[in-house]
Amino acid sequence: MFNEVNPFVLPDKPVEECGVFGLYAPGLDVARVTYYGLYALQHRGQESAGIAVADGRQVQLHKGMGLVPEVFTEHTLDQFCGHVAIGHVRYSTTGASQPLNAQPLVFRYAKGMLGLAHNGNLTNITDLRAQLASTGSVFQSSTDSEVLVNLIARYNANSLEEALMKCMIDVKGAYSLLIITENALYAARDPHGFRPLCLGRLGDSYVVASESCALTTVGATFLRDVEPGEIIRIDRAGLTSTRGFQAHNPAHCIFEYIYFARPDSTMDSFNVNKVRREMGRQLAREYPVEADIVIPVPDSGTAAARGYAEESGIPFEEGLMKNRYIGRTFIQPTQEMREIGVRLKLNPIREVLQGKRVVMVDDSIVRGTTSQKLVAMLREAGAREVHLCVSSPPVLRSCYYGIDTSDEQELIAAQKPLEEIRRSINADGLHYLSLEGLLDIFAPKQDHFCTACFNGNYPVEVPKPKESGKYSLE
Amino acid sequence: MFNEVNPFVLPDKPVEECGVFGLYAPGLDVARVTYYGLYALQHRGQESAGIAVADGRQVQLHKGMGLVPEVFTEHTLDQFCGHVAIGHVRYSTTGASQPLNAQPLVFRYAKGMLGLAHNGNLTNITDLRAQLASTGSVFQSSTDSEVLVNLIARYNANSLEEALMKCMIDVKGAYSLLIITENALYAARDPHGFRPLCLGRLGDSYVVASESCALTTVGATFLRDVEPGEIIRIDRAGLTSTRGFQAHNPAHCIFEYIYFARPDSTMDSFNVNKVRREMGRQLAREYPVEADIVIPVPDSGTAAARGYAEESGIPFEEGLMKNRYIGRTFIQPTQEMREIGVRLKLNPIREVLQGKRVVMVDDSIVRGTTSQKLVAMLREAGAREVHLCVSSPPVLRSCYYGIDTSDEQELIAAQKPLEEIRRSINADGLHYLSLEGLLDIFAPKQDHFCTACFNGNYPVEVPKPKESGKYSLE
Amino acid sequence: MFNEVNPFVLPDKPVEECGVFGLYAPGLDVARVTYYGLYALQHRGQESAGIAVADGRQVQLHKGMGLVPEVFTEHTLDQFCGHVAIGHVRYSTTGASQPLNAQPLVFRYAKGMLGLAHNGNLTNITDLRAQLASTGSVFQSSTDSEVLVNLIARYNANSLEEALMKCMIDVKGAYSLLIITENALYAARDPHGFRPLCLGRLGDSYVVASESCALTTVGATFLRDVEPGEIIRIDRAGLTSTRGFQAHNPAHCIFEYIYFARPDSTMDSFNVNKVRREMGRQLAREYPVEADIVIPVPDSGTAAARGYAEESGIPFEEGLMKNRYIGRTFIQPTQEMREIGVRLKLNPIREVLQGKRVVMVDDSIVRGTTSQKLVAMLREAGAREVHLCVSSPPVLRSCYYGIDTSDEQELIAAQKPLEEIRRSINADGLHYLSLEGLLDIFAPKQDHFCTACFNGNYPVEVPKPKESGKYSLE
Amino acid sequence: MFNEVNPFVLPDKPVEECGVFGLYAPGLDVARVTYYGLYALQHRGQESAGIAVADGRQVQLHKGMGLVPEVFTEHTLDQFCGHVAIGHVRYSTTGASQPLNAQPLVFRYAKGMLGLAHNGNLTNITDLRAQLASTGSVFQSSTDSEVLVNLIARYNANSLEEALMKCMIDVKGAYSLLIITENALYAARDPHGFRPLCLGRLGDSYVVASESCALTTVGATFLRDVEPGEIIRIDRAGLTSTRGFQAHNPAHCIFEYIYFARPDSTMDSFNVNKVRREMGRQLAREYPVEADIVIPVPDSGTAAARGYAEESGIPFEEGLMKNRYIGRTFIQPTQEMREIGVRLKLNPIREVLQGKRVVMVDDSIVRGTTSQKLVAMLREAGAREVHLCVSSPPVLRSCYYGIDTSDEQELIAAQKPLEEIRRSINADGLHYLSLEGLLDIFAPKQDHFCTACFNGNYPVEVPKPKESGKYSLE
Repeated sequence: MFNEVNPFVLPDKPVEECGVFGLYAPGLDVARVTYYGLYALQHRGQESAGIAVADGRQVQLHKGMGLVPEVFTEHTLDQFCGHVAIGHVRYSTTGASQPLNAQPLVFRYAKGMLGLAHNGNLTNITDLRAQLASTGSVFQSSTDSEVLVNLIARYNANSLEEALMKCMIDVKGAYSLLIITENALYAARDPHGFRPLCLGRLGDSYVVASESCALTTVGATFLRDVEPGEIIRIDRAGLTSTRGFQAHNPAHCIFEYIYFARPDSTMDSFNVNKVRREMGRQLAREYPVEADIVIPVPDSGTAAARGYAEESGIPFEEGLMKNRYIGRTFIQPTQEMREIGVRLKLNPIREVLQGKRVVMVDDSIVRGTTSQKLVAMLREAGAREVHLCVSSPPVLRSCYYGIDTSDEQELIAAQKPLEEIRRSINADGLHYLSLEGLLDIFAPKQDHFCTACFNGNYPVEVPKPKESGKYSLE
Repeated sequence: MFNEVNPFVLPDKPVEECGVFGLYAPGLDVARVTYYGLYALQHRGQESAGIAVADGRQVQLHKGMGLVPEVFTEHTLDQFCGHVAIGHVRYSTTGASQPLNAQPLVFRYAKGMLGLAHNGNLTNITDLRAQLASTGSVFQSSTDSEVLVNLIARYNANSLEEALMKCMIDVKGAYSLLIITENALYAARDPHGFRPLCLGRLGDSYVVASESCALTTVGATFLRDVEPGEIIRIDRAGLTSTRGFQAHNPAHCIFEYIYFARPDSTMDSFNVNKVRREMGRQLAREYPVEADIVIPVPDSGTAAARGYAEESGIPFEEGLMKNRYIGRTFIQPTQEMREIGVRLKLNPIREVLQGKRVVMVDDSIVRGTTSQKLVAMLREAGAREVHLCVSSPPVLRSCYYGIDTSDEQELIAAQKPLEEIRRSINADGLHYLSLEGLLDIFAPKQDHFCTACFNGNYPVEVPKPKESGKYSLE
Repeated sequence: MFNEVNPFVLPDKPVEECGVFGLYAPGLDVARVTYYGLYALQHRGQESAGIAVADGRQVQLHKGMGLVPEVFTEHTLDQFCGHVAIGHVRYSTTGASQPLNAQPLVFRYAKGMLGLAHNGNLTNITDLRAQLASTGSVFQSSTDSEVLVNLIARYNANSLEEALMKCMIDVKGAYSLLIITENALYAARDPHGFRPLCLGRLGDSYVVASESCALTTVGATFLRDVEPGEIIRIDRAGLTSTRGFQAHNPAHCIFEYIYFARPDSTMDSFNVNKVRREMGRQLAREYPVEADIVIPVPDSGTAAARGYAEESGIPFEEGLMKNRYIGRTFIQPTQEMREIGVRLKLNPIREVLQGKRVVMVDDSIVRGTTSQKLVAMLREAGAREVHLCVSSPPVLRSCYYGIDTSDEQELIAAQKPLEEIRRSINADGLHYLSLEGLLDIFAPKQDHFCTACFNGNYPVEVPKPKESGKYSLE
Repeated sequence: MFNEVNPFVLPDKPVEECGVFGLYAPGLDVARVTYYGLYALQHRGQESAGIAVADGRQVQLHKGMGLVPEVFTEHTLDQFCGHVAIGHVRYSTTGASQPLNAQPLVFRYAKGMLGLAHNGNLTNITDLRAQLASTGSVFQSSTDSEVLVNLIARYNANSLEEALMKCMIDVKGAYSLLIITENALYAARDPHGFRPLCLGRLGDSYVVASESCALTTVGATFLRDVEPGEIIRIDRAGLTSTRGFQAHNPAHCIFEYIYFARPDSTMDSFNVNKVRREMGRQLAREYPVEADIVIPVPDSGTAAARGYAEESGIPFEEGLMKNRYIGRTFIQPTQEMREIGVRLKLNPIREVLQGKRVVMVDDSIVRGTTSQKLVAMLREAGAREVHLCVSSPPVLRSCYYGIDTSDEQELIAAQKPLEEIRRSINADGLHYLSLEGLLDIFAPKQDHFCTACFNGNYPVEVPKPKESGKYSLE
């Protein structure tokens, strides 16, 4: 409820919601390893962080609002004991910014204790919640994760795997889940594999994480991705894999490659950095401009800008300097200092731009407000021409699978034709990467990705308009 | 889980658990009135505080760990809007010290939203929880209040009153409850009326509170106590009272009068200050000592000491000075400075004590550790004789109705005969108020009180040994 | 500068400025002892706290805004090492509320390091500062203590005692000082002995403190008061006393007895609690009222009310209940809830007051605003008559010796005749203790006290009007 | 005193000490502009931040420990009023981490009020302080800035310019100063111009800042650098420049270009980004390696790596991914997780490195500990060869002019010959940029730079060994 957001810090970009990390590792300080794993996944969520640890008898929990190092101290980590752990970092999609919505959720039910960390977004929770409520369930938060917890409890007659398989049938949408019980770690990925989840090995132990960068950070080696529809149990008996049902084709979120994931991660067989570089190359082929320099909008446009420069032969330059200290709590410029806003974050380098014809590469445009300011800044700094090249297709539709892309009314590409957008941001040229061009990079697996935000092909039913939106459950 | 307690601040006394406050008052700033009401009830719980406010459409909640003025700022109060509010201050009995256990609890269920603030302790939650869990309920905290919430949700087919009446049949133990829905305020008190709850009028509006001091503080006038077994609904239609079932006799907690309640409160027709004074008078009649001065252990022994002085004719003096700034977070003396511990809180005044035969009046003795230190301090300060007069009978049994009296193994009176206690605290005389003497004060309503902690007559079934204890649900 | 004050928490009373505590005690944890000593002096200042410790080589310092337990943690105490310590708690008189003004001040000068803790107020600092500045001194704060530090540094050619003796000649006003060097502890009291300072013994060591309650709290025994004009050095060689110059008569602040000091303290041979009781007795002799009960305004009026009751034979009652949890940060009632303000702190007990003729005893009246509200509250609660008896004479003049009594324009007794005050607070009777009656209590030492605030006899020159005032140096 | 440092966050690099920003701008919200200016200079100091504002009558101050957005809130900024402001961000060189050492310093002296913000380090303060102390000055902190303040106060008979000119004669070392009085802003730079300082125009007003990036961020245009030995006064009369004495040649700190300054800054006529790129080109000419890829150690090695790639024709790649969320407070890995330390900050990308001969470009090596870990990480990630190219000469000597380069015993290049360093970090090749190669970039101004850390040619006398060191004044 009581939640404030700084519009200058929230970039004009889709926002990712969550990252998860877990391990089963007798003999290791599992809380601390999880802490470092979450650190490596901090880019996936900066609103809250939490860790749950089990020691065979119970599940301990600590969570709070803020960044990983703000939520955990040496002291809190030392109080954990156990051999299984899961952790979670969160940016909210469903559910407003509240301590109550921080994860993991830990609960007691008929079979004991259970903790859950969830990345994704369920699309039919309104129905699921109504069904559960009609037989007496109560909900203390507005998260879809709490609905999931109730559903698991209802189904858990024999084993957690069976309960999760039944849940997979009822639940629609995107979820990469980690579950901890007193004795075991479970990982599950929805039938389409929307959100990433991968498995690694650390000594004799297993580690599961949203992105491979978290595996390598803690010293684990990447084994494989968790498969769409797969349920993994890791306990004293080792690793057991069960298949729930699997969609005909995977529908991995393509925006992970465009913007969210860390460049040093490899997910579902594609290295993020390589894919981004290739997007830039493809952009250069699709839209060859006569220009003097190629500059990125840092940091997310850097790899694509480099690809564009390599393919086009136009020199790569850093024309915008990013302030590395921009945090979550800075004070907004007043109306009369408005133009300071973007410059605090990205400052143009006149020495680089003066008199130049510039290709500026950005990874995506959502509302277009930042693009307009950046073009104006480049011109003020002396750029003679500014061509904006976007390494993704126009975002036309909302995402319902775990990304906050804003309402369609706010998506500039859904509201205006290309030429009008170009005029409104005052660029000399504007080019979006074509969807075909984007998918070619993944050949021959072009149809293994969800591209709903570009073309409206939603792989899984989506809620009716009025039900969507971040605050629908409040 | 992660919880630390300062043994010097927790007095060697039973600890009260909670205070509740609520009002239905269109036109008033209900959040702010609740804030002040909770302020007046702060003595009933210093661990957490919370307020829930409804505006006809939804229930907003803010709560946190700490004192009322620590949890709420001008800003948080301003964000509330609505015309119904409930609030809660808490010291934990069931459930360890955790943010999750702070109240009110607010939840969504089949009928909408509902917030609950609970003072008391249920004695059969282990069974209730098992039943609820067997049909799929999950529990995120260890509080009995969460069990209550689930039960209400299961029963709420027609009206909340009916649901509460059914709950009254299932649930055993002590509860003074406030419930808020989108549109109404409900108050309910268990069939024995263990914990206090009273009703007041503020302009055209109704106010409900644990103690009458909260009514008068906010400018309301006391109307009457909520009756044992009564369910009150306050909404646009005014006040409606429903009787659930009522016990043959009330069993008001007598310790409220001895120690917990504020002296300016009147509950179930007895003014606390007057009762305490009368206890002192009765003590003097039962145990007339040859002495020079009567001194209280401040603040809780002050009224009784005054009564003793009046009845006996021995002059009343302040022989122990209380440090008003003792807070919750002070640093403990090391082993070698141990004796500083009690003196930081209560410092003897040599000018008063030197050469005197002293009657020291305290309200109760639990473990006896503080009494021993106080007697030693008085002697060091020159007291010639020290007679300890206790304005309550020996505490022999644990309470299961909302008070934390420690385990019976820790109750000194349950472990040793009187003479041995006297020797162990090194007093020249030791006298406890007799149970008959205590009850006479309430004549002719002697049998309207719960005296289980003195004589083991538990009005309501209590859990089997291993189930009791503060952490049984963890 | 950036300072906010809660008018409901600052009582309508003069405010005391500071407390000091120090010890030289090889072998003891001197930081921790100082912490407990400051705890016992917390009533003398709640704005900031600080401790400086020396180990023979250097002086370490930790200080901050807030109460003693807020400023110090186990960790900060553990980081100190040494065998000499001084500590300070502060409420500001000269100098606005700023971290810079917290004490002790620690500085380096030609002779090494020196730390200073000061209770009192100098009256000629404007001149002193101008002289020092004219030869190059700079000042980072607005405190008179920083002026003192510079003066000491200028004079310290041979020994600190000599420097302090010279300072005593230049400096006018009130000061009880503790000074720490790398190896020694110094205590000094101005020639009039305005502010209290006493000496105690803890094992083989010496302890110095503003009030004796701090000595007894840490387990030390009271030896004697530091004499007006005395300079004490405590080091390896033991205790050495030097006399600076001494005024003809002492001028101990009489308000320490009336309001500031803790009742369990004895200063300059008079026990505070006893003096207060005697004031009440004297009041009863001067102003015998036909009444049913005597009630105090707690806590400061309690001892005098008891004296009044004893002398008059009218029963003592507690008619106003004080909320023990009123802290520094509570949220002010809005205009429409204004009347909640005083009641939050002091709630009338109708059962005591109804139909009664009441003598209400308060220790002093400054602006009179609270008195008016209290009388109104008593009447609303049923009191038939209210006589306000004040256990001090009317405060007519400002204090310049370390107490913040507000401007003379705000002193109600300086603005209105008695009868008009009575009417404005709507009491049936109003009586102030006579100055003669007050001084009789101290016979035969009547002329050992400063009574300037009552009769304008300032023992030491005071600044010209425009120089006084809390913010004159800002 | 009580200060803790996280060795994983302090990079194995020299650390910069301070940034300053100031403006004289009637009509603007000068506090807010300063806030944004400091934000842009945050890379120059993260330990404390402060702003002082004058309104013609007085100088207000707010400062604290932490980052700019942690120290200032909307509320604190709103409380400032005035038309002149200076601000400061600090990392400590002289003076341990203490609130007392935060700047600006504001003081009162014979001429009124004065605030000072200082970037640099004085080399003869021990002498200066002794002289000042001998005539009575006292020092509350261990900063050289406080010494400066006292000296200014002593000299300020006629005008501040004259006082500053006299100070320039006495004071040795590096200083870029901003001074604020009730009415004016002063800027001064030492005779060698060690630390940067530049002047800009914002509407009708003047702005002064450590780096030009702060000018452009707040929307000001760069006018010129403040000259070595220049004293500027900005007040109602506009800008007045005075020359103090100037060294024969400037001695600008060359490390500003190598590592400290933001790439988008231009200082003393050289753009930082361009210089760094050129360093990389020069490296490639001096040390042409047979390799497959060039990778930077981000972020400080990025520009040089790009220059190397361009000159050599070897492809540029990002082989190390930097975690953008590394903050100041994270929990250190235990001994057994030691190797996680560097990887948390820099994670190698196997897809880029596998099987490759790698040129890794870093800007400098101080102790060499990180280099060793990075080489090991690259090899583990599959690199076939690792050549470390350093875009600066070996650091052989300590800096005394405002940079913390560690003791000479810790400088690996001062302890071991090149080949031994190479072996100890286990690189296949190691090359430092030659000093000639570095200086050539600045031709024909090669002799305008201080290169003391490379060749020991100290332009200004340095303290004798035992006096240097960060804690010499404590």
